[in-house]
Amino acid sequence: MTVIEPDPVVQLREQMRERHLTPLWELEGEIMGVRPHPGTRPWLWRWSQLYAIAERAGELVPIERGGDRRAIALSNPGQGGMPYATSTLWAAVQWLNGREVAPAHRHTSQAIRFIIDGAGSYSTVEGDRVQLERGDLVLTPPWTWHDHGSDSEERAVWMDVLDIPLNNYLDAPFFEPHPDDSQKVTAAPNASVLKYGVGQLRPAWEPPSLGRSPLQTYKWSDTRRALDNLAKVAADPFDDVVLEYTNPHTGGPVMATFTCWMQLLRPGVHTRAHRHTGSSVYLAYEGRGATVIEGVRFSWTAGDMFVIPSWATHEHVNDGADPALLFSVHDTPLLKAVDKYRSEPHDSPDGRQRVTGEFS
Amino acid sequence: MTVIEPDPVVQLREQMRERHLTPLWELEGEIMGVRPHPGTRPWLWRWSQLYAIAERAGELVPIERGGDRRAIALSNPGQGGMPYATSTLWAAVQWLNGREVAPAHRHTSQAIRFIIDGAGSYSTVEGDRVQLERGDLVLTPPWTWHDHGSDSEERAVWMDVLDIPLNNYLDAPFFEPHPDDSQKVTAAPNASVLKYGVGQLRPAWEPPSLGRSPLQTYKWSDTRRALDNLAKVAADPFDDVVLEYTNPHTGGPVMATFTCWMQLLRPGVHTRAHRHTGSSVYLAYEGRGATVIEGVRFSWTAGDMFVIPSWATHEHVNDGADPALLFSVHDTPLLKAVDKYRSEPHDSPDGRQRVTGEFS
Amino acid sequence: MTVIEPDPVVQLREQMRERHLTPLWELEGEIMGVRPHPGTRPWLWRWSQLYAIAERAGELVPIERGGDRRAIALSNPGQGGMPYATSTLWAAVQWLNGREVAPAHRHTSQAIRFIIDGAGSYSTVEGDRVQLERGDLVLTPPWTWHDHGSDSEERAVWMDVLDIPLNNYLDAPFFEPHPDDSQKVTAAPNASVLKYGVGQLRPAWEPPSLGRSPLQTYKWSDTRRALDNLAKVAADPFDDVVLEYTNPHTGGPVMATFTCWMQLLRPGVHTRAHRHTGSSVYLAYEGRGATVIEGVRFSWTAGDMFVIPSWATHEHVNDGADPALLFSVHDTPLLKAVDKYRSEPHDSPDGRQRVTGEFS
Amino acid sequence: MTVIEPDPVVQLREQMRERHLTPLWELEGEIMGVRPHPGTRPWLWRWSQLYAIAERAGELVPIERGGDRRAIALSNPGQGGMPYATSTLWAAVQWLNGREVAPAHRHTSQAIRFIIDGAGSYSTVEGDRVQLERGDLVLTPPWTWHDHGSDSEERAVWMDVLDIPLNNYLDAPFFEPHPDDSQKVTAAPNASVLKYGVGQLRPAWEPPSLGRSPLQTYKWSDTRRALDNLAKVAADPFDDVVLEYTNPHTGGPVMATFTCWMQLLRPGVHTRAHRHTGSSVYLAYEGRGATVIEGVRFSWTAGDMFVIPSWATHEHVNDGADPALLFSVHDTPLLKAVDKYRSEPHDSPDGRQRVTGEFS
Repeated sequence: MTVIEPDPVVQLREQMRERHLTPLWELEGEIMGVRPHPGTRPWLWRWSQLYAIAERAGELVPIERGGDRRAIALSNPGQGGMPYATSTLWAAVQWLNGREVAPAHRHTSQAIRFIIDGAGSYSTVEGDRVQLERGDLVLTPPWTWHDHGSDSEERAVWMDVLDIPLNNYLDAPFFEPHPDDSQKVTAAPNASVLKYGVGQLRPAWEPPSLGRSPLQTYKWSDTRRALDNLAKVAADPFDDVVLEYTNPHTGGPVMATFTCWMQLLRPGVHTRAHRHTGSSVYLAYEGRGATVIEGVRFSWTAGDMFVIPSWATHEHVNDGADPALLFSVHDTPLLKAVDKYRSEPHDSPDGRQRVTGEFS
Repeated sequence: MTVIEPDPVVQLREQMRERHLTPLWELEGEIMGVRPHPGTRPWLWRWSQLYAIAERAGELVPIERGGDRRAIALSNPGQGGMPYATSTLWAAVQWLNGREVAPAHRHTSQAIRFIIDGAGSYSTVEGDRVQLERGDLVLTPPWTWHDHGSDSEERAVWMDVLDIPLNNYLDAPFFEPHPDDSQKVTAAPNASVLKYGVGQLRPAWEPPSLGRSPLQTYKWSDTRRALDNLAKVAADPFDDVVLEYTNPHTGGPVMATFTCWMQLLRPGVHTRAHRHTGSSVYLAYEGRGATVIEGVRFSWTAGDMFVIPSWATHEHVNDGADPALLFSVHDTPLLKAVDKYRSEPHDSPDGRQRVTGEFS
Repeated sequence: MTVIEPDPVVQLREQMRERHLTPLWELEGEIMGVRPHPGTRPWLWRWSQLYAIAERAGELVPIERGGDRRAIALSNPGQGGMPYATSTLWAAVQWLNGREVAPAHRHTSQAIRFIIDGAGSYSTVEGDRVQLERGDLVLTPPWTWHDHGSDSEERAVWMDVLDIPLNNYLDAPFFEPHPDDSQKVTAAPNASVLKYGVGQLRPAWEPPSLGRSPLQTYKWSDTRRALDNLAKVAADPFDDVVLEYTNPHTGGPVMATFTCWMQLLRPGVHTRAHRHTGSSVYLAYEGRGATVIEGVRFSWTAGDMFVIPSWATHEHVNDGADPALLFSVHDTPLLKAVDKYRSEPHDSPDGRQRVTGEFS
Repeated sequence: MTVIEPDPVVQLREQMRERHLTPLWELEGEIMGVRPHPGTRPWLWRWSQLYAIAERAGELVPIERGGDRRAIALSNPGQGGMPYATSTLWAAVQWLNGREVAPAHRHTSQAIRFIIDGAGSYSTVEGDRVQLERGDLVLTPPWTWHDHGSDSEERAVWMDVLDIPLNNYLDAPFFEPHPDDSQKVTAAPNASVLKYGVGQLRPAWEPPSLGRSPLQTYKWSDTRRALDNLAKVAADPFDDVVLEYTNPHTGGPVMATFTCWMQLLRPGVHTRAHRHTGSSVYLAYEGRGATVIEGVRFSWTAGDMFVIPSWATHEHVNDGADPALLFSVHDTPLLKAVDKYRSEPHDSPDGRQRVTGEFS
């Protein structure tokens, strides 16, 4: 009769499991990766579908307390069922019918809105009301009261980006409904634009606004002018003509956890490819073009939204005759703040990837 | 014959699902929480068990390339099966037998070791070798070559803390094995301690080391002296006599993503309770005491390790006759860098929680 | 016969003098003042005289190497014969005839020009040429090659402000003539305005320009717009509607040693009086008004220049029906950098001084 | 009859003078120098004379309100009769008899004391009293109440360095006597040393002390240890083994306007020569050696004090068998804060100057 001696390593492993302990040596390759292998997938959502669904929601779904916003989230299929665009960023289409109000609340998530269409709508942040017009970037800094509403019959539609996934990952969410649906407007109309809208000049008697941008909205007319001016004199090999929105009191990004860009791809431009840590969400704002991500071509036209994951090689193409404009949001400030930003150019001779497929 | 009209809202919801879209209004309460509800659980690992398992691993498991380190990770039962102490921090007991070498590698995770016991062992970081002695804090800044070894017959055991979970969450891991098991020692023995070990004085001709602490190790003799000195003149109501290890060239934390503390609870001290965002890992370094976390009492004695989750109310107790010392690691710098730090004192009249249970 | 014993204190004092030593106790009140007693005097130079003299110099004095610039310095009668406006600031009227060139050189003094009149003239700084138009602020950062010239028949006249006195006080002057009278223009026309002229947006791929403002000129059209906008929503009790020119990449002043302001006094405004450390030079840019300095009224009209010394109580008055505009330069950044800035409001009930005289 | 036409340029020049205007073109070379030509002269004061005079003052001159301090100032012969060591720095020997009190006051000048000899004396700053022992550096940040006194029979003697000249130049002096000769001691003995004396560790609950060093005194035992440690591993070619005293909460200098160094010249060391903007005051603390300044050899022995002007080429020599120690104060932080720091090595083949004389 043979007695089978239990394997001591197996026994040890079992003891560890019982005591909530795990040996590194069994999983080093898994948890200390040689390079990033994001779950987040490159993905694209078509504007035609986004618009149709948002419009239908506008007919069927009221805006009520508890839901608070008619926002439809880009849900990356690589986020394990969570409604997140990337592991750090939430992105959504928001639809507001004429005469509606999206009720006032505040939260610790950091938020921006980029206005796609509509007229007569507004956003009020801490008593300062700004109009929402196509191409405007509107900020909602963390823990500021904000509500959105419409003074016209026309619907408004915009893109929301928030750091909800990061906020939850860090176990740092706080949320509070305002007692009223609409907070009182206490500032003069467009006060922050009037005070801070020429970024290189500021009220001399005020201390600088270090923690957050003093500008509540970056109007499209300024952005367009800056973009056209820049296009005359300079461009980046990887991103062509691209501007970062900044806090003019510090030069820093508009939020601590993410930054916003407006980008113009000149007709005929095909940028060099590169990759970097950090994830991004894009909105095709005007024109048409394509972005090649890890060898797959994502063709886009105005209104489409897409995601580039961390460390995914990517390049942009405008093979049309008109400029193509991209608005985008990047979690780069977060990566840089914690010393985890790294980038490198693609190493092919012409700096481009070999295209192996087309997203559809 | 009746025809059943399909519910249009159900139809819309189905269209969204097919297109990887999710309505905010169905889950606002879930993803925009009123306050944090961390998955991470308060937990404690007993030193007797940690030691026995590590010792047994020292007998059974060799240190080899691929595993690289004989480290046994605290695996919080609230981390969904991942071997993480909290959602941002990895913590482990590492065991090195006499004459062993843990081979040289580098990674983007930020790492510290706190030495619990042993003699004759060393850590080499970028050619600078330091001895590992009880109570020393030893740094491994990101992407620096490092190996650990022993020049004696004696085993060494220490606590490792790294930001592996954060690094993975951000899709920013990089790892590289060194061609040799042991890198060459190029600096004079203890060079960084000799150059920077009196923190208020620095080589006048060198630019300050902004990105990382120039001190590779914080020797226990200095820490103990600072602690005893501080105990004579000041204490905090929430944490009693507590020191933060800093980069003396900036005053900042030793790593961008976490900070380290050494804490002395004087005999008879019972601190006031408070809570804050951010998670922590503790090692009871000397003496005995207890920490009350969300009403549950976690009694500890030297060598025990425990976790306090984000926003968990906690207070510390030393009801013995001797000082009790706690070493701890906190992801506070990360929370502060992205404007997500918040704290508040407990609101009971005596500042303490009602104890409702004992962890066992 | 009496022998006069020499007084031992007198003897000691003499020994000190021989050895280049001085007792503090004899002069503490003199060198450690209870409050500032600047040598710099409040003063005003009339535009009619400035203009006539500059115009005459334009007829009589050529611009040649060695002199380099046809600049006429405001020489404060309290500066002991030195041609300085205040102890830290040099200010001058510069006159450039049509078709002239003020030859290229560079120096460590930090310089700005504020354009009063003229057309067809330019300033080239490190290969970037900008047009000089009424109301423009043009920067010359330290140790940058710069020359000024005219492409038209028209004369140009502007105000120069430099930190020459400080540079000399610190024994830090360096100066170098360029081999050519005019440096080559290497940048596209108005490159810095096109790249950085909308201050809240910046080329996303470039690192921020920390040490100096990336904007070479602040065009009057932007300044005027910002001023009119600000006037709609906010004003300071001491300075009314006042903007500071900033480096949009940092929010800091345009130079390390001084900052520039553009100020609008609304019709009927009489500001509250205050005083602060640091000295200032003003140019009345548009309209008319008065500034009360230490009880003396300095009435001014467009083109006049005046000085407010450190710690001099001052207030501004516009009792006309039109806005009055003041451009000014302040050494406040220097004072703040070395922890010597202090300010206080005037303590009379209505916040105004009693006027005891009129400067003439 | 001939009429002599007055020279129109002479007439113009006269008009300018009457109107307090000065033409740049007549003095460009004078006020915009090609390189620095400081008035401040290299100079040395012998300890034997300093001591004898201070001792005699101790016998003859009481410390009284109004004089406040028995301080004897190094009066550089190039400072035009002002009792200043350099254009920015005041330096003095201060003598305190046993049982004396130098009465409490405060001022905006920034001050340090470096203790040369004595026992039983103390300095109290804002209620925190520290002992004054040989080799200690003691800080008096601006506008802090401070008095010095003696609890023993022994006299104390130290070096004072303040930024009085800068403070006066900037028209920013404020001074206030305390109602009492000695302020109350409110802090525990040596509180700041006990709290902050191990610079790489700080009370975790306190915000960092950004504006000023939290350490009131840098004890000689720490400085000596740091110096001996550094000497084992590193040295600078221009200054040999040299440490800068820092604010451990920021890594910055101990004062905004100047920084302090302790320097060890190893036996046999002859440093390379260099020059930089900014002026310095030195105290030979131990041993003997020489400093060559602009070709002139300044031999020194313990207690001697000397000045190196801005942009003066200098090198240090220790040709004895024992280490030589120099304490020094430099206005470098001021120069750097305003972007006026520049340095360059001497360009001779061996990096040394040709010695053309000896100071005597």
